[in-house]
Amino acid sequence: MHHFDPVARTISLDLPGPSLSDNRSHKSRARAALESILGQPPLFPLKICKVLPDILPSSDYKVQTLVLDGPSGWEIVQISDGSRSLRSYGLAVDLGSTTVVFYLVDLGSGKIVATLSKTNPQRVHGEDILERILFAGQDNGLNTLQSEVAGLFNSSIQEIVAGYGMSREDICFIALAGNTTMCHFFLGLDPGHICKEPYIPVVNRFDLIRPREIGIHVHPQAWLYCFPNVGSYFGGDLLAGILTSGMHLKEEISMLVDIGTNAEVVLGNRDWLVACAGAAGPALEGGILSCGMRAQPGAIDRVGIDRNNLAVKFHTKDSKAPEGLCGSGIIDLLAAMFVAGLVDPTGKLVVDRDSARMQQIGGEWVYVVAGSDETGHGDPVYISQSDIKNLIRSKGAMYTILNVVIQSVGIGFEDIEKFYVAGAFGNYIDPKKAIIIGMLPDVPLERFKGLGNAAGNGAIEALTWRKARKEVEEICDKITYLEMNVRKDFMNQLTGALFLPHTDLTKFPSVAEMMKG
Amino acid sequence: MHHFDPVARTISLDLPGPSLSDNRSHKSRARAALESILGQPPLFPLKICKVLPDILPSSDYKVQTLVLDGPSGWEIVQISDGSRSLRSYGLAVDLGSTTVVFYLVDLGSGKIVATLSKTNPQRVHGEDILERILFAGQDNGLNTLQSEVAGLFNSSIQEIVAGYGMSREDICFIALAGNTTMCHFFLGLDPGHICKEPYIPVVNRFDLIRPREIGIHVHPQAWLYCFPNVGSYFGGDLLAGILTSGMHLKEEISMLVDIGTNAEVVLGNRDWLVACAGAAGPALEGGILSCGMRAQPGAIDRVGIDRNNLAVKFHTKDSKAPEGLCGSGIIDLLAAMFVAGLVDPTGKLVVDRDSARMQQIGGEWVYVVAGSDETGHGDPVYISQSDIKNLIRSKGAMYTILNVVIQSVGIGFEDIEKFYVAGAFGNYIDPKKAIIIGMLPDVPLERFKGLGNAAGNGAIEALTWRKARKEVEEICDKITYLEMNVRKDFMNQLTGALFLPHTDLTKFPSVAEMMKG
Repeated sequence: MHHFDPVARTISLDLPGPSLSDNRSHKSRARAALESILGQPPLFPLKICKVLPDILPSSDYKVQTLVLDGPSGWEIVQISDGSRSLRSYGLAVDLGSTTVVFYLVDLGSGKIVATLSKTNPQRVHGEDILERILFAGQDNGLNTLQSEVAGLFNSSIQEIVAGYGMSREDICFIALAGNTTMCHFFLGLDPGHICKEPYIPVVNRFDLIRPREIGIHVHPQAWLYCFPNVGSYFGGDLLAGILTSGMHLKEEISMLVDIGTNAEVVLGNRDWLVACAGAAGPALEGGILSCGMRAQPGAIDRVGIDRNNLAVKFHTKDSKAPEGLCGSGIIDLLAAMFVAGLVDPTGKLVVDRDSARMQQIGGEWVYVVAGSDETGHGDPVYISQSDIKNLIRSKGAMYTILNVVIQSVGIGFEDIEKFYVAGAFGNYIDPKKAIIIGMLPDVPLERFKGLGNAAGNGAIEALTWRKARKEVEEICDKITYLEMNVRKDFMNQLTGALFLPHTDLTKFPSVAEMMKG
Repeated sequence: MHHFDPVARTISLDLPGPSLSDNRSHKSRARAALESILGQPPLFPLKICKVLPDILPSSDYKVQTLVLDGPSGWEIVQISDGSRSLRSYGLAVDLGSTTVVFYLVDLGSGKIVATLSKTNPQRVHGEDILERILFAGQDNGLNTLQSEVAGLFNSSIQEIVAGYGMSREDICFIALAGNTTMCHFFLGLDPGHICKEPYIPVVNRFDLIRPREIGIHVHPQAWLYCFPNVGSYFGGDLLAGILTSGMHLKEEISMLVDIGTNAEVVLGNRDWLVACAGAAGPALEGGILSCGMRAQPGAIDRVGIDRNNLAVKFHTKDSKAPEGLCGSGIIDLLAAMFVAGLVDPTGKLVVDRDSARMQQIGGEWVYVVAGSDETGHGDPVYISQSDIKNLIRSKGAMYTILNVVIQSVGIGFEDIEKFYVAGAFGNYIDPKKAIIIGMLPDVPLERFKGLGNAAGNGAIEALTWRKARKEVEEICDKITYLEMNVRKDFMNQLTGALFLPHTDLTKFPSVAEMMKG
């Protein structure tokens, strides 16, 4: 976190009154005082100029002003005679395809005063973002998607401000981070070319816009900042992650990994940044597995298996009876099964190893984690042979993407000092288990660091630190983006990664060591 | 005139189409091309971004754009697929209290394609600007004044564009210069403090505004630039005069004089500028003289009197039968009468010198310039004893203002290399005659230079030369403004100037020489 220098400030002025020896215009008088505080003279919209000849004399030249750091620098957007105290709040938003998280930030103190998490209403048009892109291409589809998310903003803003005796006009700056497509929906930009070769977004770097232009009602002079993205698949959420990690300022080389349906990776330091994104498949998010589920109450999020007696221990969200497996649980499970010899390096279930838990369901072998007598819904929670194949394909894609990126700059994983792991799901992964299955590289565990909600934290930083926007621009300028979809290396390397942990065990010495023991 | 670098440009782009090796966003593609031409990347409003995914592919990436130099630098405000050619016109305006002059400027070529001069509709509320300030203070008065001038803009714009097969949306930039009060009326800013001690305008330096904010309908994304002013009495028209004279760039010392009811003066060079404004009285504009009139057809604008036989020769506007005296005619007349001995140095009519023309009208002596048999209206055109007293007071005030200014920097008139004479009336003055009556200093005639319509020319320059706005800012920063209304020197010095040409004839050697001859 950088020092506190917010994009909106309320500033009280006690101006010298006019005299024959100081007969500056009303505007010059106020402007000079603000310039001495801000280091730069603010713009005065006509609206503000019009009230000066009333408000200045009647308040005896003691006024409070609200200034914003807009596209032309500081601008004054409100002035009060002090009978009503002005407020400056910002709204930071993590615009996810599944969940949208709002943070109300008091720009006077930098404190987060409220957090509200909402389901993205666009989900009714498809859980998968591709389905929504197709929907956007239909008659009025894009407008519908845009209005839905703008509507969510408005209702969430109402909900938040109602709780704090505030008005929505007290919010004078919005900063948001989301992936390229979500930002296109949000701004009403046609995302149709994003998913078709050669993968062209409409906009990568957004200028500040007025929230009302897209139907969002806050302060009439408010500004909205949308984190830029790079290419079609490297989104603003990742840029926000880079910003909050600070990896772009360090001498040491770091890697930022966002784990999800798309695996997004950035590697580099203060001198250079290489980014890449590629499809890892939905298996890692649990979406298409037989018993996959989101990290809701009842989701198994931690699993261990005793190597000797094969006893299974698991933990569920909120300690409720199990109903399925969420992402971190799935990775734990596969790692534990591999270590316990329940699945072989090719990903095949070793059915004779535990005849009690190995069963046939729906015509294929499965491994039962929780029997029907233990679960909340009365059906068993298990992982099937084809689930494991899907998982291995996803984790293999992830590892290959990381590997292609490091090879593109001619270094090895051991040269990387820090691995920042981002993404709603990525935060819950146990890196040790992810190494065992060969999803993350085999480096000392202390090098892994969860980034929390990188998109939300980045958006908060864009509100509380004025230079963030410029710094994000500089990050964008620095990034070299590798178009993974078209790289031959990827397919060549993927083959070796479709094993547990890998065909080349020298790449995973700690796992090789563990399997010996 | 500086080199041509207009505030609006139409730029045709022939962009490389997208490919896997060049899959920049639509915006980046267009932005980079514009940046290479403009030297700075333009802003892309959301509105423009939205049409890019349609217009770029459908035009095969050959488009025409319209960019404006707005408050944050270049911004793209229109894009066309070439089926309709974009146009960029600017409107330069000389916003006078009597007359408003509009110049339509083709910003593609810099040419003035139309000029339209209109009476300021605010005149119904008072010929004198003070009357209008009082009117503005009444219920809804300011709104009325604002709407009247905005209405004049709209109707004049319609009239101009109708003649050229254009639409008002083809006008994308407006620049205007007027005095402080006229600009306040125009923008709807309360001028009430301008004329009361300590003379506080609301705004001296105007930020760019949207014409629609003040009810003027041109291109929806157009900008309006209003020349700044200094203090309450040194207006944007004068700043425009400085800009067009170039006096602020030269090593030599120049003086710019705007002659009117208020005499406005600026003295200086590239290193320093001193400005002053003071009331000269309406006599010089002919407004209050017995037979004064504006420079319309029938106005006597040139007068000569034979020193020996006292024969009078005059010229009228459009050579019509005389109906009155306009400003230049009045100065000519007084100078000729003085040289011919018809008026003495104290301003007293020498009634026995020409008993035919010296008559008593309305209880006082007058000198008849044109008899009732010669005039258009059948009444004589004359100058009365009290007219002459008023004239001498006005010319004396004018001279004294110039003198106070030069004394404030410790130089003499002989140190001034150029005298720029501005103002609608100032342009028609014969400097030789103005010297004879002691209104302008006695320096070689070749040092005087008429500036034409300085306000209009400055406004045109603000449209055709992008750096003009910044240069005008720098001029403002450089100006030291002397508040004449409060200077004691003024009253002390005025006394000597209430003679023809002055009590101290050594100040007017050429006049002294002439009177001897």
